[in-house]
Amino acid sequence: MNIKSRNLGQLEELCSDIRERIIDVVSRNGGHFSSTLGAVELTVAMHKVFDVQKDPFIFDVSHQCYPHKLLTGRWEEFETIRQFRGLSGFTKPKESSADYFVAGHSSTSISLAVGAAKAIKLKKEKRIPVVMIGDGSMTAGMVYEALNELGDIKLPVVIILNDNEMSIAKPIGSISKYLSKILAGKFYQSFREKIDRNIIQKLPEGATYIAKKIEESMKLITPGIIFEEMGIDYIGPIDGHNLEEIIETLEIAKAMNKPVIVHARTVKGKGYSIAEGQHEHWHGVGPFNKDNGEFIKKVSAKSATAVFADALVNLATKYDNVVGVTAAMPSGTGIDKLMKEFPTRFWDVAIAEQHAVTSMAAMAKEGFKPYITIYSTFLQRGYDQIIHDVCLMSLPVVFAIDRAGIVGNDGETHQGAFDISYLRFLPNMVLFAPRDEETLNLAIEYSYTLDKPCAIRYPRGAFTPLSFKATAFEFGKAELLKEGTSNKLFIGYGAGVSRACETQELHKEDIAILDLRFVKPLDKELLKQLSKKYNDWYIFSDSQKQGGVGSAILEFLNEEKININLTSFEYEDHFIEHGDTKVVEESLGLLPSLLVNKIN
Amino acid sequence: MNIKSRNLGQLEELCSDIRERIIDVVSRNGGHFSSTLGAVELTVAMHKVFDVQKDPFIFDVSHQCYPHKLLTGRWEEFETIRQFRGLSGFTKPKESSADYFVAGHSSTSISLAVGAAKAIKLKKEKRIPVVMIGDGSMTAGMVYEALNELGDIKLPVVIILNDNEMSIAKPIGSISKYLSKILAGKFYQSFREKIDRNIIQKLPEGATYIAKKIEESMKLITPGIIFEEMGIDYIGPIDGHNLEEIIETLEIAKAMNKPVIVHARTVKGKGYSIAEGQHEHWHGVGPFNKDNGEFIKKVSAKSATAVFADALVNLATKYDNVVGVTAAMPSGTGIDKLMKEFPTRFWDVAIAEQHAVTSMAAMAKEGFKPYITIYSTFLQRGYDQIIHDVCLMSLPVVFAIDRAGIVGNDGETHQGAFDISYLRFLPNMVLFAPRDEETLNLAIEYSYTLDKPCAIRYPRGAFTPLSFKATAFEFGKAELLKEGTSNKLFIGYGAGVSRACETQELHKEDIAILDLRFVKPLDKELLKQLSKKYNDWYIFSDSQKQGGVGSAILEFLNEEKININLTSFEYEDHFIEHGDTKVVEESLGLLPSLLVNKIN
Repeated sequence: MNIKSRNLGQLEELCSDIRERIIDVVSRNGGHFSSTLGAVELTVAMHKVFDVQKDPFIFDVSHQCYPHKLLTGRWEEFETIRQFRGLSGFTKPKESSADYFVAGHSSTSISLAVGAAKAIKLKKEKRIPVVMIGDGSMTAGMVYEALNELGDIKLPVVIILNDNEMSIAKPIGSISKYLSKILAGKFYQSFREKIDRNIIQKLPEGATYIAKKIEESMKLITPGIIFEEMGIDYIGPIDGHNLEEIIETLEIAKAMNKPVIVHARTVKGKGYSIAEGQHEHWHGVGPFNKDNGEFIKKVSAKSATAVFADALVNLATKYDNVVGVTAAMPSGTGIDKLMKEFPTRFWDVAIAEQHAVTSMAAMAKEGFKPYITIYSTFLQRGYDQIIHDVCLMSLPVVFAIDRAGIVGNDGETHQGAFDISYLRFLPNMVLFAPRDEETLNLAIEYSYTLDKPCAIRYPRGAFTPLSFKATAFEFGKAELLKEGTSNKLFIGYGAGVSRACETQELHKEDIAILDLRFVKPLDKELLKQLSKKYNDWYIFSDSQKQGGVGSAILEFLNEEKININLTSFEYEDHFIEHGDTKVVEESLGLLPSLLVNKIN
Repeated sequence: MNIKSRNLGQLEELCSDIRERIIDVVSRNGGHFSSTLGAVELTVAMHKVFDVQKDPFIFDVSHQCYPHKLLTGRWEEFETIRQFRGLSGFTKPKESSADYFVAGHSSTSISLAVGAAKAIKLKKEKRIPVVMIGDGSMTAGMVYEALNELGDIKLPVVIILNDNEMSIAKPIGSISKYLSKILAGKFYQSFREKIDRNIIQKLPEGATYIAKKIEESMKLITPGIIFEEMGIDYIGPIDGHNLEEIIETLEIAKAMNKPVIVHARTVKGKGYSIAEGQHEHWHGVGPFNKDNGEFIKKVSAKSATAVFADALVNLATKYDNVVGVTAAMPSGTGIDKLMKEFPTRFWDVAIAEQHAVTSMAAMAKEGFKPYITIYSTFLQRGYDQIIHDVCLMSLPVVFAIDRAGIVGNDGETHQGAFDISYLRFLPNMVLFAPRDEETLNLAIEYSYTLDKPCAIRYPRGAFTPLSFKATAFEFGKAELLKEGTSNKLFIGYGAGVSRACETQELHKEDIAILDLRFVKPLDKELLKQLSKKYNDWYIFSDSQKQGGVGSAILEFLNEEKININLTSFEYEDHFIEHGDTKVVEESLGLLPSLLVNKIN
């Protein structure tokens, strides 16, 4: 049955079916949960009021797109969400024409809507871009850049601000406070207080009628004044779970024929009482028992993130000048622990990677040792700041890069493939990586002593345990883990070292293994020595091949005019799909059992 | 004489001496002119009220820092500004301890101030960061990210908003409009109109007293409400050329002990009547006759920028779906011409590189062919957007990268060194470059036909003319310009081709020359063929060596197991200083007359 022809009662029923389906599938597959549950009514209303075949439906980050997928021919297939070759957890045009754009990083939606609106105007079409964006995404600078143009050109765009008063973690910054004030009606209150002090107290007696009128006018003018002053009309706040109210409001917004923000208050996790209103805990989840909300825990080793967090706690305990920052990923990066233990030295600056990097550059200049804890894929957001504000002055900022390599079910928008390639050629930058838990501890200790910018990378999940004794990091020094009798040399970087070891174990020959440790600067002396004994080199690293670890070694070999047979098992020149990490690695031929066959 | 002990009259005299010195030196050296003249009184007042030995003085972009340099022991040395090994045109800590931070890219200042303020608090020091930022810089998202945190943590920072109602070009976007409204007093006006409609008209007769009170209160509350609502106090607007008013206001702001914006209205070019209030024309200038303001023109060939602009005009005339964007560099990128001829299809979106890239990605999705015209160094600001919003969906967006290679007097913050290295490994990206004027025309024509993201780079200034017949671009095809009798092969990319040719002419041997044309994808077939005849290869390209053109060729040679002696004349692993381009190239050993000696 077409959504357009359903009446309100039927639509409400539909919402409840959607919720049931989401709870059922996500409890089995895992996935983004609470944000998607909170957006059910808003999404159904979008589909009722706008035309998905025609109007660009733009979901910011798009982790809240599950109801949209269910409404656009993917009810059965939803079963496969986030599984290898199954539905993506994000919008994806290759999957369905109802998905306008790929998303996965936050705060791109309003820019996309501006581009779409310009296109629609030039094509003289009757379509209107409709955006759904969470309050958390409103902190990134991109949103402001887009609003700045939109408020000026005033093309029709409807922006649904899905405000659950939290981003992934709790809301941060003055914009969040501002939005909450609106929701609570406090904006109006505090504004009225100013008026009271200034005018109403001075009113002649009996002027209550006038005072009342002033109050009413203030009410009309004040909520959303920031948006209004930027040239965007504002309606709200409305109840984001009251379907009738949403539909009515969206109809009005659509008819206004100019940019308008509809501010809707929603409850994260709505409809699954255990998750309702919960913060980070229920944002992205693994499988759970839907009857009692208990997570089905896999017995798993300590994650690299947890190892990093513990190491940083030690460092911060020892040294007063250790500070750090996350851009809205406190528990994802493990820095929540630091924020708790050292609340004056560790900050969540909201989704604001540019600001995170540059503000920490200033702290480094002031003698502090900043740790920027961030996912590989999100560091791309602060790229110019790394170059212009950190590397140019060679400031001792540490980039602690989590989620390096394949990240699993989040897929192509989130893979940590590029960081080595985009950092390696930056002057003053030092790049090193631990191979396992113990060396991650040592890497963090070492980073403190380094008076230059550096980046340390480590994978999602746990390191594979290794039996080599851990030794301290030394500037630009690699570590030969074992000699071999064959003419082959396996060179591992970071988590690639354990893959090299596993591959070695499966191979018939006795092969030497080098832990490269530093991809910049390279240990040229040791590499030169090794080239005399071994001339068949294999690179193991979770990184893009072009510009990556193999490429660094090729540059060195060329400079030194050393002739080596080099094979790199890094990622080929494609974006990498979602799915269980091992399954994805298998599809890329990167499991030791597959690699061993490529080594004659 | 210490600035602190000078009285108002003496300080006004000082301002006039500073202006004279700037006009004198810049008329001979060239440099940033009108913005620096406009900031004289503000800078003198900063130095009067704050302590440059103690308080972080943070200049956004820092092209307005000339008065600051003159006030901090560089009066004589100012003679050398922007010359090789002379003073930098921007703040630079290596040059003076009075320069807190390197700047050259816009909108980093408030983030730096936030970092500094956090450091000061932790160190329990009595210092206060003071920022000078232009209205043009207020459009970038970074500023908003920083204000979002600053308004929340509320540490003392004084932000002087130097508002000359223009960025480099004219002001763009709703924020600029908002600021102008404040300056013009129109903000209050339009706000009052709303009040009028809602209340005052309904007042009982004789209530003019109350109406007046309402008006007065509105005046107190309304200007700067956007900042106030973000938690930042606002004072202004004040006259940015009235030294007494500025000093008084800064004293108040300093004493407030919280974040405060002082909004000062200034005139760009103040004190040099010919430049006063002029837009882009007098922003950055070459030498001129200071008596009549006439530029001392060097007879010079047509710039690559101008060639590009003409080519794009042709393309846009031919094809309706050609659109384009600049981030506040209309004449710098040549797109001003397009904005004039096709005002509905070419936009200046203000300093907003992230938004520029992503909004154009949406236009590409809608069937348009967007040209993002941008300097190599500023494209770094939209890096994640290139990956996440353009490359992931393989959208046919063209990045027209101006100022590739050494840019001359602007120096290390502006060099176009990195674009090949940071774009080359991105899946779906195509990279090609013209060698001269004619091939730039052909490159633009070709770019239109390509159904993938691509980047074309060309240098600042004019191409060196070449005599080879220009042939059309073909996907992934290089062009052998001449065979040679020696076993050497010169491989040029972009402007590197002419350097290869000049070097060849100086060399005793007859050397083959290849115009690589595409660094991604490489012309593997032709390279393979050439490897059979020539085995001593030399790379000429204006790009970083690590990850650059030579690196791409090494990856190919390794893959194909071809053994070649390769030497790359790309940039080494350092930031490159400012100075005349030829002088800088000479210092790097990159002139043909120097290169020829490195080739035996």
